[in-house]
Amino acid sequence: MTTISTDAPIATLINVFTVQPDRQRALVDLLAHATEEVMQHLPGFISANIHASTDGTKVVNYAQWRSAEDFHAMLGNPTARTHMQQAAELADHYEPHLHAVESVHHR
Amino acid sequence: MTTISTDAPIATLINVFTVQPDRQRALVDLLAHATEEVMQHLPGFISANIHASTDGTKVVNYAQWRSAEDFHAMLGNPTARTHMQQAAELADHYEPHLHAVESVHHR
Repeated sequence: MTTISTDAPIATLINVFTVQPDRQRALVDLLAHATEEVMQHLPGFISANIHASTDGTKVVNYAQWRSAEDFHAMLGNPTARTHMQQAAELADHYEPHLHAVESVHHR
Repeated sequence: MTTISTDAPIATLINVFTVQPDRQRALVDLLAHATEEVMQHLPGFISANIHASTDGTKVVNYAQWRSAEDFHAMLGNPTARTHMQQAAELADHYEPHLHAVESVHHR
C-alpha cells in the first residue's frame, strides 16, 4: 500500500503516457515488469503505482523516490533506460514531471 | 494521509493541468480551496491530493471517488462546476481521466 502525505520530503514522479487503447494493456504490463525487475532495486525507490484510464487512452505511473537526485540517477542507469525506451515506443507520447505534494484532503 | 492499493474498488481521477509558472501557486490554492469548500462534502468523495511540479508547469489533482457515478454526479453540481470553471481559466489546458489502479510496487 502506498501513502500520500504532505509530511514526507520525497520526490513524486507523475508520468502520464498517452497510448492507443489496443496498446494500453501491454504498456501497463511493461511498466509493472520494469518496476519489478529494475526500478524497485535502485537506490531511493519508494513506490510505483500504475494506473490505466477507463477510457483506454492513458497510463499513469505515480511513483515515489527518496529525492530528485535518486530519480535522476535512475535516468542514467543503462538497464532502466532500456526499459523506459521500450515504454516510450509503446506510447504515442509521455510526460514525466517531478512533483511536491501540496495538500491532502479527506472528507 | 491517502492510501493507494489495488484492493479498493474506487475511481481514481487524475487531472493534469498545464499552467504558466506564474499561475501555478494560484491554481494550487484554488484547487485546495474548492476541495475544502465543496468537493469534500459531496457524496462519494474520498480524497484529493494536490501536487505542484517542480518545473512550475503542471498541477496534478490525484483524487479518489467511491465510484465513477459519484464523480459524474459531482460534475453536474452547479457549485462544483463554478470552481472547476475557475480552475480551467487559470490553466492553459487540463486533462481529467478516471483510472483503475493496476499495480502497486514497493521495494
